[in-house]
Amino acid sequence: MRKLEDLQSLIARSLSELKFPEHPAELYEPIKYILALGGKRMRPALLLMACDLFGGDVEAAIPPALAIEVFHNFTLMHDDIMDNAPKRRGKTTVHEKWNNNVAILSGDVMLIKGYELMMQVPDDKLRTILDIFNETAAGVCEGQQWDMTFETSNNINIEEYLRMIRLKTAVVLGGALKIGALIGNADIKDADLLCNFGEHLGIAFQLQDDILDVYGDPEKFGKQVGGDIISNKKTYLLIKALELTEGTDAEELIRWITFTQFNPEEKVAAVTAIYDNVNIRQYAENEMQEHATQAFEALEQINLPEEGKQYLRAFADGLLMREY
Amino acid sequence: MRKLEDLQSLIARSLSELKFPEHPAELYEPIKYILALGGKRMRPALLLMACDLFGGDVEAAIPPALAIEVFHNFTLMHDDIMDNAPKRRGKTTVHEKWNNNVAILSGDVMLIKGYELMMQVPDDKLRTILDIFNETAAGVCEGQQWDMTFETSNNINIEEYLRMIRLKTAVVLGGALKIGALIGNADIKDADLLCNFGEHLGIAFQLQDDILDVYGDPEKFGKQVGGDIISNKKTYLLIKALELTEGTDAEELIRWITFTQFNPEEKVAAVTAIYDNVNIRQYAENEMQEHATQAFEALEQINLPEEGKQYLRAFADGLLMREY
Repeated sequence: MRKLEDLQSLIARSLSELKFPEHPAELYEPIKYILALGGKRMRPALLLMACDLFGGDVEAAIPPALAIEVFHNFTLMHDDIMDNAPKRRGKTTVHEKWNNNVAILSGDVMLIKGYELMMQVPDDKLRTILDIFNETAAGVCEGQQWDMTFETSNNINIEEYLRMIRLKTAVVLGGALKIGALIGNADIKDADLLCNFGEHLGIAFQLQDDILDVYGDPEKFGKQVGGDIISNKKTYLLIKALELTEGTDAEELIRWITFTQFNPEEKVAAVTAIYDNVNIRQYAENEMQEHATQAFEALEQINLPEEGKQYLRAFADGLLMREY
Repeated sequence: MRKLEDLQSLIARSLSELKFPEHPAELYEPIKYILALGGKRMRPALLLMACDLFGGDVEAAIPPALAIEVFHNFTLMHDDIMDNAPKRRGKTTVHEKWNNNVAILSGDVMLIKGYELMMQVPDDKLRTILDIFNETAAGVCEGQQWDMTFETSNNINIEEYLRMIRLKTAVVLGGALKIGALIGNADIKDADLLCNFGEHLGIAFQLQDDILDVYGDPEKFGKQVGGDIISNKKTYLLIKALELTEGTDAEELIRWITFTQFNPEEKVAAVTAIYDNVNIRQYAENEMQEHATQAFEALEQINLPEEGKQYLRAFADGLLMREY
């Protein structure tokens, strides 16, 4: 079995060799720019890993893996416009460096280039793989729309939140694994199970991120603790707290959300105290554990040699092991 | 042979029956909205017409025809953001009625839905048709980028202008005809010839539009005469005039372009007079005729019964017959 870091290097090298037309420069330069910003290349690496697990030819899986990465960066380019984000991986975002129109149109052509790359699979797999890609791509757009809708909505329930993170974050992990498995000649049942594994793992991973924002060790987490609280981001924790709190806790939580001027540290401390009163962390960890369990259950049913399952278990354990 | 208006009705009916998910509403409502704005549905009708000409099953060509129309409306939705356009077919544009983010994301999902529809073709044609669609789609994005680049560029030549209108307007007509022909079981040589016919016809049509803006009869043309002159739009006429004028004509043309405050009627009259001095209309009509000739030459080489060629000739004549 090939090591993940080798697969990541293979992706990095193949991405750097990817050719785009020279002109119009304003259309293709931003694509080269965003693809060169780096990142862990997790999605394409998972696609290659899935292919490798089933004994497939990893080289043959490179174009679809690049397709997933190009698609992912298309969503980042458009999301950054929508979120008005000035930075991406510490560098100026495309719409800031050029302008919104350039970011819209370069993103559009990236989506098309994603399809071109995804088509570089054998004829007998083409339709199946494109169907998965279509469903994944539309799902990610739906997830982004729900996320934007939630920003201005005041009564989101946990079910809606889980659907949103599944679409926005998890389906592309599942889709990448499924496509990789099929290229590695897995049968559709095993590919679907691996897809389920990826989706539940993705949801668990996102829930972990919600928990870490509040309960993470700032030195290990690398982000400001409480950033989600400061910005009133509708995470699992906030939605659940709005559902569970009563009396003064409920009133105080609403008050903190409503304030436009406040001391950030004070707000983080106060909201965290309310979370603690209703045991939010435990609810979130239970939900996360529930999805991790479902991921592992899907994994056990896959028809793979024990070595392969062991690898996937270890990978999932690692992913969900970030320290608090 | 089926009548064009029957094909247009077929498209209109099929479009109205096209189903999109109910939720998220902000993602799918704008798609239904823009598709309901109407229009002549020329691109999908051409696709069906091409299929019919080669004796193919028009019903089987409906999903790819809808794909072309959905794709076309995706480009309109995104172009309207980029151009800051308040109206489209007399109705509020999507980004004005909702907002830019909704228009970006709904457009993205329309492109994906375009691929879904385009995939509804027989397996043995799938790859060929998607290759054409990819190339067409990327070409249209390139054309839009050139068009935007030209807005702030001062030395565009005629060759660059013709490339821009070919990409932005003509390739999608050629692509629609080619896909329709292939679904109608035309061989690739005939499909390519029909594509050439469509591209040259598209260029001629756009040049006619440039001419009509200045020399059209306002009552028949339905647009304000001289709109392109007032907005300094880099049409064939302006680019050619900048190339050909000398001395005081050249100076005066530059002056009119530079003015930020002016009497519109005066500017239209003055610039038109300069155009007339260097015989711009004749140059533009010659270029238009050159592309019409190339369209007809491609047409003559297609292996089609005389009745079919006759129909295409008549269609092209009609398209290029708008009165001055």
